[in-house]
Amino acid sequence: MEPRYRLVISCPDRVGIVAMVSNFLSSHGGSIAEASQHSDSSTGWFFMRYEISTRNLSYSIEELRESFAPIAQSFNMTWSLTDSAKPKRVALLASKQAHCLSDLLYRYHSNELDCEIPCVISNHDDLRSMVEWHDIPYHHVPVDKDDKEPAFRAMEQLIEEHQIDTIVLARYMQILPPALCEQYASRVINIHHSFLPSFVGARPYHQAHERGVKLIGATCHYVTEELDAGPIIDQDVIRITHNDSAEDMVRQGRDVEKTVLARGLRWHLEDRVLVHGNKTVVFA
Amino acid sequence: MEPRYRLVISCPDRVGIVAMVSNFLSSHGGSIAEASQHSDSSTGWFFMRYEISTRNLSYSIEELRESFAPIAQSFNMTWSLTDSAKPKRVALLASKQAHCLSDLLYRYHSNELDCEIPCVISNHDDLRSMVEWHDIPYHHVPVDKDDKEPAFRAMEQLIEEHQIDTIVLARYMQILPPALCEQYASRVINIHHSFLPSFVGARPYHQAHERGVKLIGATCHYVTEELDAGPIIDQDVIRITHNDSAEDMVRQGRDVEKTVLARGLRWHLEDRVLVHGNKTVVFA
Amino acid sequence: MEPRYRLVISCPDRVGIVAMVSNFLSSHGGSIAEASQHSDSSTGWFFMRYEISTRNLSYSIEELRESFAPIAQSFNMTWSLTDSAKPKRVALLASKQAHCLSDLLYRYHSNELDCEIPCVISNHDDLRSMVEWHDIPYHHVPVDKDDKEPAFRAMEQLIEEHQIDTIVLARYMQILPPALCEQYASRVINIHHSFLPSFVGARPYHQAHERGVKLIGATCHYVTEELDAGPIIDQDVIRITHNDSAEDMVRQGRDVEKTVLARGLRWHLEDRVLVHGNKTVVFA
Amino acid sequence: MEPRYRLVISCPDRVGIVAMVSNFLSSHGGSIAEASQHSDSSTGWFFMRYEISTRNLSYSIEELRESFAPIAQSFNMTWSLTDSAKPKRVALLASKQAHCLSDLLYRYHSNELDCEIPCVISNHDDLRSMVEWHDIPYHHVPVDKDDKEPAFRAMEQLIEEHQIDTIVLARYMQILPPALCEQYASRVINIHHSFLPSFVGARPYHQAHERGVKLIGATCHYVTEELDAGPIIDQDVIRITHNDSAEDMVRQGRDVEKTVLARGLRWHLEDRVLVHGNKTVVFA
Repeated sequence: MEPRYRLVISCPDRVGIVAMVSNFLSSHGGSIAEASQHSDSSTGWFFMRYEISTRNLSYSIEELRESFAPIAQSFNMTWSLTDSAKPKRVALLASKQAHCLSDLLYRYHSNELDCEIPCVISNHDDLRSMVEWHDIPYHHVPVDKDDKEPAFRAMEQLIEEHQIDTIVLARYMQILPPALCEQYASRVINIHHSFLPSFVGARPYHQAHERGVKLIGATCHYVTEELDAGPIIDQDVIRITHNDSAEDMVRQGRDVEKTVLARGLRWHLEDRVLVHGNKTVVFA
Repeated sequence: MEPRYRLVISCPDRVGIVAMVSNFLSSHGGSIAEASQHSDSSTGWFFMRYEISTRNLSYSIEELRESFAPIAQSFNMTWSLTDSAKPKRVALLASKQAHCLSDLLYRYHSNELDCEIPCVISNHDDLRSMVEWHDIPYHHVPVDKDDKEPAFRAMEQLIEEHQIDTIVLARYMQILPPALCEQYASRVINIHHSFLPSFVGARPYHQAHERGVKLIGATCHYVTEELDAGPIIDQDVIRITHNDSAEDMVRQGRDVEKTVLARGLRWHLEDRVLVHGNKTVVFA
Repeated sequence: MEPRYRLVISCPDRVGIVAMVSNFLSSHGGSIAEASQHSDSSTGWFFMRYEISTRNLSYSIEELRESFAPIAQSFNMTWSLTDSAKPKRVALLASKQAHCLSDLLYRYHSNELDCEIPCVISNHDDLRSMVEWHDIPYHHVPVDKDDKEPAFRAMEQLIEEHQIDTIVLARYMQILPPALCEQYASRVINIHHSFLPSFVGARPYHQAHERGVKLIGATCHYVTEELDAGPIIDQDVIRITHNDSAEDMVRQGRDVEKTVLARGLRWHLEDRVLVHGNKTVVFA
Repeated sequence: MEPRYRLVISCPDRVGIVAMVSNFLSSHGGSIAEASQHSDSSTGWFFMRYEISTRNLSYSIEELRESFAPIAQSFNMTWSLTDSAKPKRVALLASKQAHCLSDLLYRYHSNELDCEIPCVISNHDDLRSMVEWHDIPYHHVPVDKDDKEPAFRAMEQLIEEHQIDTIVLARYMQILPPALCEQYASRVINIHHSFLPSFVGARPYHQAHERGVKLIGATCHYVTEELDAGPIIDQDVIRITHNDSAEDMVRQGRDVEKTVLARGLRWHLEDRVLVHGNKTVVFA
């Protein structure tokens, strides 16, 4: 597919935004291949995402950015203009459980996920062989629970070295260094194995079994300081019955976890997820 | 359809229960039209529900009960033997919102729900005409929030007069008299408009909107003393997006509420729901 | 909610459509409250739907139409500009089965469906009382299977008298007069009780039971000359098991039918469904 | 988990089957850990599956089989008694597409599928490395479309050599040798990438796109002589929109295909699928 530019904007809502932006694009030869807009009447905020065909564009992306900047400023826009030909660089973090990691690697391998994966980082060495079969460097960074600083520094260094754009916690099961969370705000994606806000924290399937719910789920969200409380990107559930033990839920839940994580990551990679406060607008 | 007897049993699990029960039935000429069993390995408890064809039965239901009692006792069974030809008597309780009540009345009217509905009780008079069109007596029992006792007494009296088996809170929005809850343990069914245990209490759709979840749901459960914490019978969810306001959620949620309530009630009416501790076994 | 204008457009895709339309609107003081666009790369066709806030508009809808006409012509647009304050007039057609009709009437009654229902037409008299309780005229137009012409003429006359915009076949079970179908192209909505294109024609649940499928469904579509082959608006399915007889499927299928029909009708009423060839674009 | 025996029975329905079977088991010290039964009133057939705890059994599986045989005969039973400790031997057949194969191998690797996989057979060599990483022999058996006999013979020989119980067509895209189909009746599992009976044959996603359906699906079924017409084990669907091209459907459909195939295979491996005529009873 030909490369496309993605223009993503959030700003206070007012008359004329679409006219201004679409004029700007058509006057530069940019045709809009995909357009999504949302006006949030409760917050008075406006969100938009345009995919721009580059075929007839007579300007480079830098030139477009430069020309657009004054318009953006006059509308108080938070905005980005990215090139689909430059995929994001993603670090996958995992522990011992293979299902999410394996699923993402498979999708990467079969070109379903438009990104580069320069490294996998894990606090265990269990999944090395699987990762290396995909020709991806595997970094084993054990975390000493009495002194996490050395591990934190090692991870931050790896993230920096590999020029990572997005961090994915593929059932990583460890708290990230707070500095990293802050630096990568809205760019660290976690999968929590419950339908949040139910069953925050540890062993959510066991909590679900205890409560006797009839559906279990998974939640893909951006990581914030507060545990399992960040902006939700996607969720899904499956039906269970009295016949399912907590262990059965763990097994069946894996399928939901990996699907929801892959879907959320895909949307993130395509700049379809806009964060506003503690909520997301997802132009799926 | 020919009438059937329903034998429902819970007891400590051990070898020989099925053999004993099925022997008992076949020796009385009862053929098993539908059978459901569940052994809960975590609690060591056994649950079973048999629908028995009455065609070749040579004993009355009272005779069967009498013959079965000693067996039941020797296995420490909690059990019941009911006749599908004697539908339960259900009181529907509603407030101002029509959707659940209207849906149940429609299903009743079209013979989808195997029960009798001798009365509807409401703390408002809004839904009278709809109910009376169905030829069902409508009792307006206003609740004075400073003195609920008179309303409680009136309701208890109506419940007693109409010889009610099961009470359904079709978005009743009021706390029931505690004595009634106790007397009707596992026989008062409520629909809560969230995917419990998320968003207990008031205005759950607004809570859901605030949190930014991507699915909203409804939960049908038996009422216990603790608010929205009783054994869950059924749940379901629907997908929503950033585009849905809290009001949109209220509207879309109605469809889930009424479906989940009708399904839960149907299972209850057919003796398919067995309560054990704070959980249910549902032989759907 | 304040009234809104809905501008719905389909035309050959080219650069500058969005700019032209959004300029037109902003220059007339119209702010875009909701925007949906779709470029179909396989057909080269462009679709758009704008909801326009009327708060700051300084022109009447007729003036807007007049000003927009030349623009529309230059882009070869098929277009309409409608006013949400003028709801469509809908005729409901039913036979003996109540579930879809009852569901639509309930939603109408509770202001979930933004339309007027000036009449219900049926080839049987069974549902009169239910309809008349809603204060809607009920026309019994029996269809003589050996000579359908008189019934056809009676129906066409009723449709005309009541100035109907949209016809809904709420399990009407009769073929419509061909002239009516042609006159009301893309404005006659049917609910078929299968997941089309599986099980076209009569007794689809029995066909499904025979084939042993594990999901059954319903399809809401515009009526065309060919039976059950028109553009699909919406579909849904539910899970069934070996335990479900054809009769059980009929019962459970009703819930899907009424939900899918109500959803499709709602989208139609809000001008969210654009027909192109034998397919629909649904800006839900 | 302790090994269990699985007793699976189909026979004409009559009074006393359950009593006879459960007596037989309890008199041999077998406690029923999981029980499923189904009486099909339309065919007059009875189906049952018991999982028997082996803890207190005082007889070998052969002894049980020998003792049970006369009972089975007197009831005209089709039956089997298998040991969960002896997992089935499964041959996976694939072509070039990796998604189903990769998914099954992952589940096998992580002990989600209770079977042995002694070989993968493919008409292409593309997936060798992935399979061999799992330490499973990969047999490349090219099919000459003008003379399929040599390939057929080679495959039959491999199937025999590896003592295969069950053949899985993981998007194998070739017709199997008819002799093999017959020999492995109800033991060859295929995944078809549509919601059967819609879109039989080639390029179902393109057929679906052409028709404009709003849901796409996948069907797991036993292979019979007639293409895509065998008994259905499981099906599922996902929602798509006008925005999805046929290629998008292909991508999204993969997730449904692999989930449905894995689920169907899992049920088959646990002897939960009983074939009767062209339909299945699935004791999930």
